[in-house]
Amino acid sequence: MANKRRKRWQTPGTMPGTLTAHAEASLCPVSLSAIAYDAGSFREWSIPVSQVASLAPPEKGVLWIDVCGLGDPALVQTIGERFGFHRLALEDVLNVPQRPKVDDYDGHLLIVLRESHYPEMAEQVSIFLSAAVVVTFQERVGDAFNPVRDRLRKMAGMLRSSGPDMLAYELCDAIIDGFFPTLEKLGEEADALEDKVLSETSQDTFREIRELKRRLLDVRHAVWPARDAMNELLRDDSGLVHPATKTYLRDCYDHTVQLLDMVETFRDVSSSLVDEYMMSVSNRMNGIMKVLTIIATIFMPLSFVVGLYGMNFDRAASPYNMPELGWRYGYPAVWLVMLAATGGMVWFFRRKKWL
Amino acid sequence: MANKRRKRWQTPGTMPGTLTAHAEASLCPVSLSAIAYDAGSFREWSIPVSQVASLAPPEKGVLWIDVCGLGDPALVQTIGERFGFHRLALEDVLNVPQRPKVDDYDGHLLIVLRESHYPEMAEQVSIFLSAAVVVTFQERVGDAFNPVRDRLRKMAGMLRSSGPDMLAYELCDAIIDGFFPTLEKLGEEADALEDKVLSETSQDTFREIRELKRRLLDVRHAVWPARDAMNELLRDDSGLVHPATKTYLRDCYDHTVQLLDMVETFRDVSSSLVDEYMMSVSNRMNGIMKVLTIIATIFMPLSFVVGLYGMNFDRAASPYNMPELGWRYGYPAVWLVMLAATGGMVWFFRRKKWL
Amino acid sequence: MANKRRKRWQTPGTMPGTLTAHAEASLCPVSLSAIAYDAGSFREWSIPVSQVASLAPPEKGVLWIDVCGLGDPALVQTIGERFGFHRLALEDVLNVPQRPKVDDYDGHLLIVLRESHYPEMAEQVSIFLSAAVVVTFQERVGDAFNPVRDRLRKMAGMLRSSGPDMLAYELCDAIIDGFFPTLEKLGEEADALEDKVLSETSQDTFREIRELKRRLLDVRHAVWPARDAMNELLRDDSGLVHPATKTYLRDCYDHTVQLLDMVETFRDVSSSLVDEYMMSVSNRMNGIMKVLTIIATIFMPLSFVVGLYGMNFDRAASPYNMPELGWRYGYPAVWLVMLAATGGMVWFFRRKKWL
Amino acid sequence: MANKRRKRWQTPGTMPGTLTAHAEASLCPVSLSAIAYDAGSFREWSIPVSQVASLAPPEKGVLWIDVCGLGDPALVQTIGERFGFHRLALEDVLNVPQRPKVDDYDGHLLIVLRESHYPEMAEQVSIFLSAAVVVTFQERVGDAFNPVRDRLRKMAGMLRSSGPDMLAYELCDAIIDGFFPTLEKLGEEADALEDKVLSETSQDTFREIRELKRRLLDVRHAVWPARDAMNELLRDDSGLVHPATKTYLRDCYDHTVQLLDMVETFRDVSSSLVDEYMMSVSNRMNGIMKVLTIIATIFMPLSFVVGLYGMNFDRAASPYNMPELGWRYGYPAVWLVMLAATGGMVWFFRRKKWL
Amino acid sequence: MANKRRKRWQTPGTMPGTLTAHAEASLCPVSLSAIAYDAGSFREWSIPVSQVASLAPPEKGVLWIDVCGLGDPALVQTIGERFGFHRLALEDVLNVPQRPKVDDYDGHLLIVLRESHYPEMAEQVSIFLSAAVVVTFQERVGDAFNPVRDRLRKMAGMLRSSGPDMLAYELCDAIIDGFFPTLEKLGEEADALEDKVLSETSQDTFREIRELKRRLLDVRHAVWPARDAMNELLRDDSGLVHPATKTYLRDCYDHTVQLLDMVETFRDVSSSLVDEYMMSVSNRMNGIMKVLTIIATIFMPLSFVVGLYGMNFDRAASPYNMPELGWRYGYPAVWLVMLAATGGMVWFFRRKKWL
Repeated sequence: MANKRRKRWQTPGTMPGTLTAHAEASLCPVSLSAIAYDAGSFREWSIPVSQVASLAPPEKGVLWIDVCGLGDPALVQTIGERFGFHRLALEDVLNVPQRPKVDDYDGHLLIVLRESHYPEMAEQVSIFLSAAVVVTFQERVGDAFNPVRDRLRKMAGMLRSSGPDMLAYELCDAIIDGFFPTLEKLGEEADALEDKVLSETSQDTFREIRELKRRLLDVRHAVWPARDAMNELLRDDSGLVHPATKTYLRDCYDHTVQLLDMVETFRDVSSSLVDEYMMSVSNRMNGIMKVLTIIATIFMPLSFVVGLYGMNFDRAASPYNMPELGWRYGYPAVWLVMLAATGGMVWFFRRKKWL
Repeated sequence: MANKRRKRWQTPGTMPGTLTAHAEASLCPVSLSAIAYDAGSFREWSIPVSQVASLAPPEKGVLWIDVCGLGDPALVQTIGERFGFHRLALEDVLNVPQRPKVDDYDGHLLIVLRESHYPEMAEQVSIFLSAAVVVTFQERVGDAFNPVRDRLRKMAGMLRSSGPDMLAYELCDAIIDGFFPTLEKLGEEADALEDKVLSETSQDTFREIRELKRRLLDVRHAVWPARDAMNELLRDDSGLVHPATKTYLRDCYDHTVQLLDMVETFRDVSSSLVDEYMMSVSNRMNGIMKVLTIIATIFMPLSFVVGLYGMNFDRAASPYNMPELGWRYGYPAVWLVMLAATGGMVWFFRRKKWL
Repeated sequence: MANKRRKRWQTPGTMPGTLTAHAEASLCPVSLSAIAYDAGSFREWSIPVSQVASLAPPEKGVLWIDVCGLGDPALVQTIGERFGFHRLALEDVLNVPQRPKVDDYDGHLLIVLRESHYPEMAEQVSIFLSAAVVVTFQERVGDAFNPVRDRLRKMAGMLRSSGPDMLAYELCDAIIDGFFPTLEKLGEEADALEDKVLSETSQDTFREIRELKRRLLDVRHAVWPARDAMNELLRDDSGLVHPATKTYLRDCYDHTVQLLDMVETFRDVSSSLVDEYMMSVSNRMNGIMKVLTIIATIFMPLSFVVGLYGMNFDRAASPYNMPELGWRYGYPAVWLVMLAATGGMVWFFRRKKWL
Repeated sequence: MANKRRKRWQTPGTMPGTLTAHAEASLCPVSLSAIAYDAGSFREWSIPVSQVASLAPPEKGVLWIDVCGLGDPALVQTIGERFGFHRLALEDVLNVPQRPKVDDYDGHLLIVLRESHYPEMAEQVSIFLSAAVVVTFQERVGDAFNPVRDRLRKMAGMLRSSGPDMLAYELCDAIIDGFFPTLEKLGEEADALEDKVLSETSQDTFREIRELKRRLLDVRHAVWPARDAMNELLRDDSGLVHPATKTYLRDCYDHTVQLLDMVETFRDVSSSLVDEYMMSVSNRMNGIMKVLTIIATIFMPLSFVVGLYGMNFDRAASPYNMPELGWRYGYPAVWLVMLAATGGMVWFFRRKKWL
Repeated sequence: MANKRRKRWQTPGTMPGTLTAHAEASLCPVSLSAIAYDAGSFREWSIPVSQVASLAPPEKGVLWIDVCGLGDPALVQTIGERFGFHRLALEDVLNVPQRPKVDDYDGHLLIVLRESHYPEMAEQVSIFLSAAVVVTFQERVGDAFNPVRDRLRKMAGMLRSSGPDMLAYELCDAIIDGFFPTLEKLGEEADALEDKVLSETSQDTFREIRELKRRLLDVRHAVWPARDAMNELLRDDSGLVHPATKTYLRDCYDHTVQLLDMVETFRDVSSSLVDEYMMSVSNRMNGIMKVLTIIATIFMPLSFVVGLYGMNFDRAASPYNMPELGWRYGYPAVWLVMLAATGGMVWFFRRKKWL
């Protein structure tokens, strides 16, 4: 369970703006790729770490640098210096996981989002947006940005003729839409649990329900602040986001609201599951008690009857002492009585709908 | 259960503004009808798909185009181009179900609402409102708009002499009022469940309660954002909604608030139902336990007594060994003791109100 | 149960502003009374339906028309036309029950409130306030307005010398204060249930708790929007409410807040009642189980003992076969053992505080 | 229970501004005391009721009149007239309990607060603040204001050299700080209940928890609006509260927030208590069931065994009929079997941690 | 338990601004240290109490005075007078624990925060920020400020060249980041409890859950207002906080939001723990009942059978009286019947998954 949560704090008292790699960051090797484009031209290349220091904002068009892997703080620092990013922004890139947010620095924006990798943990994606440059930092190599890259290559859409804000929007859109398949899978799990909760009431089922709730909470913690972040971009007054792009961002904002609607619905379903599990346990208890009560109610009177005629009163001493034992049809009569009593019990249980 | 929810997402990374038909959209054939009217004239006709490309805003009066069926993205695109609708708005039309909302584009509004078809799933209705044109998109042929169409035909009300905003209002009003019968039916189901929950406590009853809660949640998810949408129309500053129409929209807004009041009341009732179901299960358990306890309490002492006189102590060996067995009235005395014990138990149970 | 809720919707698609009588409205005959007053004069008369068409705003002073019964839509329409009330406002008068609210139309306000008639259902009261006229519509003849009428007759207070807004205020105040006795009665019911829930745990008690909660919810649904309505009157900028009157309205607003405080307190109490009911059921179960366990724990060992000496081992075959049966004090010794065992059990139960 | 709540409403329809004494108000005799002070002078005297009519605002300095007991509406009216207080404000003084609030009238403020008298009910304190006069109304003679009076007498603090707003602040501060000891006592009760809930689960304990919750709710209902009232004084723009005093009022506001924090913590604790009570009841039930099951599981097999050898099969008729009964060590062997079975059961229960 | 809460109120009616030491404050001896620095110089010294009266704001650079221990009100007063701090602010320093907050006084700010010392109680830290001076008051000697002190000594970061607001920010940052390790430990406790709740259901486990919830609540009560305080600093308009520092404060604000996210997640987990504990208790009850039912269901029929053939019907009196007792294979047949019945029961229980 412990691996479900990630430490997300530096030692208290660390100097603000300190760039240190996350403990697990070194597991993913660092790789850089770049795309430079404008309406007419397109260039895509891979950047060796040694050449990072010579990077510079392009004279025209848009430069997009995608960094995968956060294991090299020095590299992050160099990129930050080349493009003038604030130290605190760079710290947020490395000190994962941050809460999704938009931070407005002088001359650039930092957009932090969380990318869904269900059933693995979400990954932090940091997007720097400045006048001509978009720099993205991912924790590991992923394929969420590939459709955007493809569109740039194919000169599809109006992306090529728009500014870096449009690119940033498309990246955000790709990340946020990535939560829809995750939620769809969680919805299927919820449906499966609805059937399971009826057929068995092991503690495992309850754990699965709890696990589902926790995952929904994770999605909520990722999407809720992302909604606020999109809203902040919509109301951005730094001039980095053009009004035409805002129309598109509103669409992206709508998607976050839809996601939250789905999360709330599934959370409601999973709460119902807990109730239903409780019901199921109670009903099972009722079933057990019914079996016990039926058995006891049938056999206790019978045991009394057979015990009665097991008494050793001295029939020779008195004619009142258990004359039944000497009757010709005494034994068959006792059987009749016992069968009648059992039949009466069964009728009683049927009336109570226990049988 | 799975069919209760609809996928509402395109593949993540799809280019924003991509118009693709929903998987199930092709099930409903596409049909178009048009009405053009002003205070003095009225024309109603059906539009073949081939003539869509020649549509144009009317020179005077209002043109209302109603499209049923979303299976033809090309058609939607053509209509969008003819009337200058934004690509993102058209995407929202096709990518059902969207959350109810009002989107303000340059020169036109997109109003998205959900139409109740209880007990079937709600359907998305998209209403475009521009200076002289209203275009509505429904998922399938329905009759919610017929009363409005009738009023236009009959020249009833002030609808004919008003602009397209008044038409849009009346369409919204018809859609929103359609939730009242749905809620009334859900209220009747809640009443029926209140009786049922007392007479039987099967898991089915609990499932019906859960189903009711889910349906109420669906209505809430449809009406809550519709309320916000109406509120946004009320505060519209695009100039497309005239102040006189806003007085009417306020009425429509009030209806959404009334609907939400009803939903909350019914949600409260259905929560009480869960409590009452739990009560019912507990009371049943109590009933079972009472039967068991009564039986055990009566027959255990009796069994002890008859067992007592079934012991084989050697009466010949000692006068202290079970002399009762030789008494003249030993056996009747045992019966008396047992009857008295049983009577005492019954009295005890009556005092405890278990019988 | 079904009669607890009232249908409050017209057929979806009905033309906005359509005036139709509510299904049950015809049960109450329509009657009209009028009062015209200023600081110096006072006139009170009853208006025959035939003379409604000749009504007109007074030249000076205030005219108050009180209409009881909503069975005559034509009458409502005529009054609306005589005083220039908006069709939508008139529709809200007839289409009961509306949510309490204040609607600001051009030149007049519509104040909708709900009047408490505990234990009967609340009734809608609609108050039109214009420059010189107050028109009130009640569903049936009531006495809530009588104290105000008396004050007008007696020239008491500053009501006679104030405008129609002061009259409207006093009417609102009378309606809202009418919820205090209702809540007081509900509070008494809650107190009674607190005693009842301890002494018996029938399902009836639970139903009464639920009924109490529902009634409190009804009051809340009536008072909560009334609070908003009073607040809206306080911030009214139509010019129909004078600043001096607003000081009084603030008092009325305070009363709604007090009412909501009381409702919340009682809702809290009734939630505690559900908890306590559950406790009570559980405690009863515990009591039943204790009886069962005591009986079983005492008699099962005894039954074993007497069964033991009912065994038929052949004492003649071996000296080890149940020699106890031949002892001189065997039988009394068994009794001693059994009494000691019973005493031990009783001591055990006492220590566990079960006896 | 009924005495926990106080009626707080006049007959509906009572003329606004009517001054009538509360039913229980006559129980406390009315007494008036006055203090007049400025930086250099100080005078304290008791005012006979007969001289109230000659009261007047002082020419310089501050006049504080403290009225204890609300049984004399005429007196309240006379004071109101002498100092120009609004009728509605005077009505709020008499019509206790009002919700804590600040009402801004022309030329004076009415501050209503509730004073804690744990374990008795809270008392309403009404403070009128005008340019040179502070009039306080208490329901009964109390000592909450004594420290303030002492400071005035001793010329301590900057109170003597400040205006009436500083006096009003100190009175509010004294009243609000009076809730801290109350909450401390409620906290001690909560601690005591935490121990009690473990050792006994009588319904009394549950009632005490409920009583605690109700008291906390009462404090909340008193302090929450008091916080709003202090906030309103902070933002006062009547000119009656000087900026320097507002710095002090912010401190008072902070205290109300602290109080609400404590209330929320204790409410959380008392909710946990209900859960723990439920736990305790369930655990007790488990304990009872364990005893029953242990007894039944040990003695039912034993009873079977002894019953087995109590059968009367005719050993003479067949060598297969119960030859055990004739064995030399038959009886000791049965004892061994039974002891072994019992030992096995005990081992089983120990493994299940039931013993 | 009582020691979990601290009294935080002076006697009601105490004069506002009274400086008195907290009851436990004298336990920590008072010590003062000072650091004076600007971009070029650095001096650190310890201040004897006797020299406090000669302290004065520095002519250039920043003076930071750190006071540990609150046992000497006179000292606090002297410091306040030397630097012109408001009496109410000084009172808040001594009257611990205050709610975290920022108070804006004329010429200086008071920032109150709570420092986490898990598992001990949080400590109040008060930070005065004025134009050239930062004064911090801690309840006891701690090491939270050491990293900041080290940076000052090492001339690291831009702290030395910035104003006192930057110092105040770094102190706040150190205090707030101190909650991350605390929450991490609480998270580990929650994980440990998740395992524990399955394996044992003693009341101790429930108490630990409750303790966890209380600790989380404590953190929440400390961090929630700290978030508001940081937000207030962000929007500070006193001029004491420079815009460049606000960029850093936003980072600090983000940390409080992250902390609250973690708290909410853990609170959710601990609520699940309560549910799971209840589940566990119910499942245990089910297990107990199953054992009882299995035993009773197997042995009650067997006891009936052996009882049956323990009856003493007189075989000599009638051929119908228990002829089975004389059969050659009667006894083995009874054994067969009993084994078959037991086998059937076992099959039944297996089908029900009870075995």
